[in-house]
Amino acid sequence: MNKKTTQLKIALVQQVCSRKPSKNLAKSITGIKLAASRNADLVILPELHTHSYFCKSVDPENFNLAEPIPGPTSTLLAQAARRYNIVIVASIFERRTAGIYHNTAVVLDSDGSHAGIYRKMHIPDDPGYYEKYYFTMGDLGFKPITTSIGKLGVMVCWDQWFPEAARLMTLAGAQLLIYPSAIGWEPTDSNDEKQRQLQSWLTIQCSHAIANGLHVVCCNRIGTETNGNVTIDFWGNSFIAGPQGEMLAHADATTRSVILSKIELEFTEELRKSWPFLRDRRTDAYHDVTKRYLD
Amino acid sequence: MNKKTTQLKIALVQQVCSRKPSKNLAKSITGIKLAASRNADLVILPELHTHSYFCKSVDPENFNLAEPIPGPTSTLLAQAARRYNIVIVASIFERRTAGIYHNTAVVLDSDGSHAGIYRKMHIPDDPGYYEKYYFTMGDLGFKPITTSIGKLGVMVCWDQWFPEAARLMTLAGAQLLIYPSAIGWEPTDSNDEKQRQLQSWLTIQCSHAIANGLHVVCCNRIGTETNGNVTIDFWGNSFIAGPQGEMLAHADATTRSVILSKIELEFTEELRKSWPFLRDRRTDAYHDVTKRYLD
Repeated sequence: MNKKTTQLKIALVQQVCSRKPSKNLAKSITGIKLAASRNADLVILPELHTHSYFCKSVDPENFNLAEPIPGPTSTLLAQAARRYNIVIVASIFERRTAGIYHNTAVVLDSDGSHAGIYRKMHIPDDPGYYEKYYFTMGDLGFKPITTSIGKLGVMVCWDQWFPEAARLMTLAGAQLLIYPSAIGWEPTDSNDEKQRQLQSWLTIQCSHAIANGLHVVCCNRIGTETNGNVTIDFWGNSFIAGPQGEMLAHADATTRSVILSKIELEFTEELRKSWPFLRDRRTDAYHDVTKRYLD
Repeated sequence: MNKKTTQLKIALVQQVCSRKPSKNLAKSITGIKLAASRNADLVILPELHTHSYFCKSVDPENFNLAEPIPGPTSTLLAQAARRYNIVIVASIFERRTAGIYHNTAVVLDSDGSHAGIYRKMHIPDDPGYYEKYYFTMGDLGFKPITTSIGKLGVMVCWDQWFPEAARLMTLAGAQLLIYPSAIGWEPTDSNDEKQRQLQSWLTIQCSHAIANGLHVVCCNRIGTETNGNVTIDFWGNSFIAGPQGEMLAHADATTRSVILSKIELEFTEELRKSWPFLRDRRTDAYHDVTKRYLD
């Protein structure tokens, strides 16, 4: 931790992502610049923010969108991190080698150095989200990334539905949890169903804050994207939640925006004194969590 | 599963608990009778419903309140289950032997038989909630209790804050999760803080529904109880939530009530087809969940 101690101003860049990577990256950089001008220490971009959500279809051509880390995008973002003196959490379609591609979050420290990467551990595969085709499962586990402003528990999108992931990041020393995301509505669903889905997504992420007594941050894209029969209305709703699951900042479903909140990481220790869940976990009785099903 | 298939009418008896066990039990029986008259298949009572919340103080005399299972209370409740043809989830301060006492949930099937017990695994210990003094940690693990209406994932109060417990009950085949509870506000907290606490309690339990794709039910007591310097305003808010975390029935903080909802257990399978979290759990990467902390 540097002289900023534990107070942290966090910014989220909620953006539309088109089929033009350079245009998308320019938007991300504009958001980063804006965040820095408002004195943010940390800025988070949505999942795969330099691309339209290409997993809407199964197409081998899309593997050509992948790039190494370090590579062109991470280098540009590292320059921005240094220029604006801000820590950046970005998301890159990573080419690790021929035939191994990952959905990877990269953290650039405010001096322009690569602080570390996280490779998405939980990979979805559902109509319109054909991620198991593109992304090899992460093999780095749930390890926080150490930066000049603290230990960041960076995960990616689908990971947000798994309490195990949030817990493991916490046990490994993460001071806050961060989820770049790309999730939206199927336009033919009823409004009631759409609201249930959005609310369940907010609820489960806020529950990670509560269970682990730390802040949780999520940055999602907005905009409607179509490919053949598949249309997704990305639902935005990027948010910063406190350790009791309370909303500190919350974007809407359609507005391009940079939302900010100043948080106090030390509140984690205060809160855990009153709600000592980590003290009371029955670690002696959890071994079957590593099982698929008990039958 | 019997002829009722997977449709289930659930009732919760939200009640005040005084220092007179026989009076409290009479109230519980009245609630059970009312639930049955409204055709409920399953009725849930609050945690330790035959007692005032004696854990407000540390007093060896209170161990005399404990009783065996089967014992007087479970026998009376078994008679009620048979009389009213209803499955009952009750809560008993169990004397297992001299020096071993548990906070135990007991399930009475609708034919009056003892279906099984669950011994509270996670034991709190905080100002006004001195449970580690009274209750030995449960040693039965997270095993659903098989009844004529399905496999019930019964846990108790503090367990509700631990995602591991909900997950393990799910993996062991529970068809819904059930939490008898006794939790409330410290009267000197601000209204904002009270609302944050209540909301976090609702949020984390709804998140277990979402993460595991099943219904979650919680029955809490109401009323203000004082012992010496300790006063607790039990916050009620008993609820029945669906597998997307949506509220199906929800009591307020102060009203004695029997709330009901008809649920469809088969919805679990439909929902898990759309939200296949159990398919995508990284069981190969969860072993450290059995650790206290990774340092």
